[in-house]
Amino acid sequence: MSSIFLWTGKQLVKRAFKGDDTLDSGIPDVTIPDNDDLDSSNPITEEIFSSWALFILLLLLISALWSSYYLQQKRIQAVHETVLSIFYGMIVGLIIRVSPGHYIQDTVTFNSSYFFNVLLPPIILNSGYELHQANFFRNIGSILTFAIPGTFISSVVLGTILWIWTSLGLESINLSFVDALSVGATLSATDPVTILSIFNAYKVDPKLYTIIFGESLLNDAISIVMFETCQQFHDKEPHFSSIFEGAGLFLMTFTISLLIGVAIGILVALILKHSHIRRYPQIESCFVLLIAYESYFFSNGCHMSGIVSLLFCGITLKHYAYYNMSRRTQISTKYIFQLLARLSENFIFVYLGLALFTEVELVYKPMLIIVTTISICIARWSAVFPLSRVVNWVNRARAGNQNIPDEIPYPYQMMTFWAGLRGAVGVALAMGLQGEFKSTLLATVLVVVVLTVILFGGTTAGMLEVLNIKTGCVAEDETDDEFDIETPRPSQQINNSILQSRRFNTTSRPSYSDTRSRTSPKLDAVQSPEDFLRGDQEISSHELDGIPPLVPNANSASTPNLFQGDYDINGSPGRASLVGTVQSMLQTNDRSKWFQNFDEQVLKPVLLDIDPRNSKDGPDIV
Amino acid sequence: MSSIFLWTGKQLVKRAFKGDDTLDSGIPDVTIPDNDDLDSSNPITEEIFSSWALFILLLLLISALWSSYYLQQKRIQAVHETVLSIFYGMIVGLIIRVSPGHYIQDTVTFNSSYFFNVLLPPIILNSGYELHQANFFRNIGSILTFAIPGTFISSVVLGTILWIWTSLGLESINLSFVDALSVGATLSATDPVTILSIFNAYKVDPKLYTIIFGESLLNDAISIVMFETCQQFHDKEPHFSSIFEGAGLFLMTFTISLLIGVAIGILVALILKHSHIRRYPQIESCFVLLIAYESYFFSNGCHMSGIVSLLFCGITLKHYAYYNMSRRTQISTKYIFQLLARLSENFIFVYLGLALFTEVELVYKPMLIIVTTISICIARWSAVFPLSRVVNWVNRARAGNQNIPDEIPYPYQMMTFWAGLRGAVGVALAMGLQGEFKSTLLATVLVVVVLTVILFGGTTAGMLEVLNIKTGCVAEDETDDEFDIETPRPSQQINNSILQSRRFNTTSRPSYSDTRSRTSPKLDAVQSPEDFLRGDQEISSHELDGIPPLVPNANSASTPNLFQGDYDINGSPGRASLVGTVQSMLQTNDRSKWFQNFDEQVLKPVLLDIDPRNSKDGPDIV
Repeated sequence: MSSIFLWTGKQLVKRAFKGDDTLDSGIPDVTIPDNDDLDSSNPITEEIFSSWALFILLLLLISALWSSYYLQQKRIQAVHETVLSIFYGMIVGLIIRVSPGHYIQDTVTFNSSYFFNVLLPPIILNSGYELHQANFFRNIGSILTFAIPGTFISSVVLGTILWIWTSLGLESINLSFVDALSVGATLSATDPVTILSIFNAYKVDPKLYTIIFGESLLNDAISIVMFETCQQFHDKEPHFSSIFEGAGLFLMTFTISLLIGVAIGILVALILKHSHIRRYPQIESCFVLLIAYESYFFSNGCHMSGIVSLLFCGITLKHYAYYNMSRRTQISTKYIFQLLARLSENFIFVYLGLALFTEVELVYKPMLIIVTTISICIARWSAVFPLSRVVNWVNRARAGNQNIPDEIPYPYQMMTFWAGLRGAVGVALAMGLQGEFKSTLLATVLVVVVLTVILFGGTTAGMLEVLNIKTGCVAEDETDDEFDIETPRPSQQINNSILQSRRFNTTSRPSYSDTRSRTSPKLDAVQSPEDFLRGDQEISSHELDGIPPLVPNANSASTPNLFQGDYDINGSPGRASLVGTVQSMLQTNDRSKWFQNFDEQVLKPVLLDIDPRNSKDGPDIV
Repeated sequence: MSSIFLWTGKQLVKRAFKGDDTLDSGIPDVTIPDNDDLDSSNPITEEIFSSWALFILLLLLISALWSSYYLQQKRIQAVHETVLSIFYGMIVGLIIRVSPGHYIQDTVTFNSSYFFNVLLPPIILNSGYELHQANFFRNIGSILTFAIPGTFISSVVLGTILWIWTSLGLESINLSFVDALSVGATLSATDPVTILSIFNAYKVDPKLYTIIFGESLLNDAISIVMFETCQQFHDKEPHFSSIFEGAGLFLMTFTISLLIGVAIGILVALILKHSHIRRYPQIESCFVLLIAYESYFFSNGCHMSGIVSLLFCGITLKHYAYYNMSRRTQISTKYIFQLLARLSENFIFVYLGLALFTEVELVYKPMLIIVTTISICIARWSAVFPLSRVVNWVNRARAGNQNIPDEIPYPYQMMTFWAGLRGAVGVALAMGLQGEFKSTLLATVLVVVVLTVILFGGTTAGMLEVLNIKTGCVAEDETDDEFDIETPRPSQQINNSILQSRRFNTTSRPSYSDTRSRTSPKLDAVQSPEDFLRGDQEISSHELDGIPPLVPNANSASTPNLFQGDYDINGSPGRASLVGTVQSMLQTNDRSKWFQNFDEQVLKPVLLDIDPRNSKDGPDIV
């Protein structure tokens, strides 16, 4: 009997490691048996390989997350977590590349469809959902200027330089002008996750944050549309009228995508209002999540821009539908969107590192890479500085003589230039390049993206000091996230002055979320960055007592619980929110007030489930 | 200028619908252009198709969820939502099948690797996390008996009947005995999601619920292992010793998988205890989620049973690591696990319906299907009733003369038999069948699975009445889910008698979760089923006032908030929990008390972050 068990044990070990004599028990993920050993069409074997592939990927993710925690805990600023993620990916990619067998390598290769359909939507949705709407729309002019003409200028400059370089014949590449423009478009999508998390840690002025954040959101979409437009002209002769054709097409796409997103957001608000689905929070959460994603896929399927739709769907959801949800759904959608976005972002950086070694068809040309990197700087420069002057000129003209114009000072322009690191959208787009040189171009884009992340991302902290940009801005933070035990609560004494209540955010890296960084530049309660970087602040009990209990609105049992930081229990706006309203009215242009009035008088009564007069408190609810 | 815009608009419409004249604007998901029109290797085109495919899938999911809501809201019992999901899948599968082009059809086909790696883990993890541990381990004897020998008997009987039938030569199939056993193994995995949700709606005795629930969890794993063991003997001659070999292999696999799961759960608890990751709840949530999934993939990669590992990892997480988490992570992991499980389940049933028509290589043989269906009933009968007698005999022997033996009465046995509907695990396993008849066998398995869901699932409610099974059992429900506004809270007056506080659960379909159905059969506060089916109970404000405010433990700022329903703010157990402790001690066998003592004295002080004397209250924390 014992011999049977012994033999069974041996069988087990053999089965687990498939008879590979080169077993290195410390690193199970490299014991990839030779292909000759296995019937690779056997689904069981395939499943084991896919299990190992997923195990490796998840392990990379866990390492990236743990590094993120460690860096924040030890307050290490020399290296940023996104850079670390890329390095982990590179290391593991190298290991996979040199080990025998190719199944795992095939499984972990970068798939652009997978990126666009699975990894990107959560990030966009969370960005829209957590967007600080007041700041965003206050700076919408600058944002749109940098996003649309800025991306266009950047693509054209980049494409032109690349075309000239490759025409010189030094590389053995021959790019048509349209193809060069395509590459320019892919490399114009910025991805400032790294920069924004550093901004958050330093509490940089939210205006700068918002501009960079908003621009990056939109120029992903615009790069994609521009890329697809260029691809349409592939192998065709471009005419001068093509520019107008492209521009018209683009504007139409943008507008229709925006309308799709807003329409779906409004649809959700109406459904939640007129049905009783609020009674089933589990179903409700799934429902909201799925419909938001539907906007993305529907828009993409109609050849519109899914990103723009999803972004504005998220914004609309937060503005209307959020207040029709049950409390549980409010919380779960928020947490789930954040978690998915967080996982996706880390995954993307890890994937970038992996792809450097596991992509089998890459042709590296160092000179081209260097030239492209320099061109990116030139293109970014040409986009940011002239347009900043345009924006400032327009603001000065609008402000006239009496008001202080809302200008973008030179340090901010410089920082915006510095925030032009490229990201995974560029790589994903580059996988769609056609033609005989696609391997070279893909390799170039990949390396350039990684380089910009390391170079620009790693030096951002230094640049903030060099440029003397104001840090440590007090964040007047209205979140209804009562479980953020890391965020000390405002005390219940609401003072009548214009000073807003303070809130310290020690959990950095909100990853495309900027709810924690809204303030008015006029506040004089600025703290030094070191205060904010103290990771282990004591949470005094009296501050925590300030958390009002979760009691639903006494009006009706079916009213969702509007827990807002400054509300007293009866749901009437507290004094701080009135103060906030006054302040925001001072800051908002008169031109945009029409929408606020329209929103309060017409839209909210139609779309929301409650008496809007009980819920209105200006920008405090976003 | 206007002509340019007009032309641009036309271009847009043409682009959106790719020049397909058969445009049916009402159903955009059938406008699949002919393959000749497109360059199908163009990633952009591929991406549009994948967008439509995902759009269709999500739309099916939304329809399934909405039907679930509608059925619950209108309290329709004639048809169950899982059956509806299958029908939706079938309808859309038919549409996809008859429409031109095959790209979407390829995208939505059932992929067993996708099922095992993406769809199944969330369900198992949520089951383990939400498991009512006291009930589960109280009935562990019956559960293991039905799961292990029961599945074995079922596979053998089924396989034998199939082998005999195919040997008769009436069908043009020739199955070896081992292959027939493989098919038997695939068809022995039960999937009682449908039945359990009906049980929940009717508040059936939790003992019955727990047995069926626990059996289904484990026999998925056992079917998989049995299937793989049979596949190993494919094309080999079985010897008599193979049975022992197989049995030994199986027991080893089961034990090692269990240990892997428990070890990883304990690892998470220790990491959470000894690090400060609790300060970063976002990272913490991702971390817990990822490590739980790692247990699954690691176990699968080592050729062990990932399901068993993940199940016990979830149980261990809930038992130890949960109390080391920040409050926010506790909530977000719970919600996220539930949401993912919910989505996965609905997705699986929709996929089953889709696969009936989109699987291109199915060969339907009606007689074989009918014979297989009848064999399933016979196999289930042979497994359930004899084993029930064994269990009852053992219980009687153990109970002796003084105690009331813990028997399974005949109606429960009959209900357990009736709960033997097959599910997607069988289909996924069947895709791994080898040999020349795999198409036929796959078709058979698929149709049989759908049939059992419709037949057995649809008649469960009737069977409950026919068998006169006690319904409307009062659930003493300890959840710390303070956002379940649908669940009225117990009043704060805790009576000293042995009667537990009442709680009405109107949100049915916890989908593999049974935290809401624990009670003692001795209670006499039984209500009629109609009371529980009233969907729109009024929530009186005084009940809601019973929700204690979320204040963390006053001991230290780093202590997680142990909000349990019966705690007062200082964390000492309330009187109801002491009552619960006494009651559970009366019911628990003496044999299992050693583990409880060991757990309290040794394991919890090591693994938990708090003084266990403040947190101990017996089975109330699970």
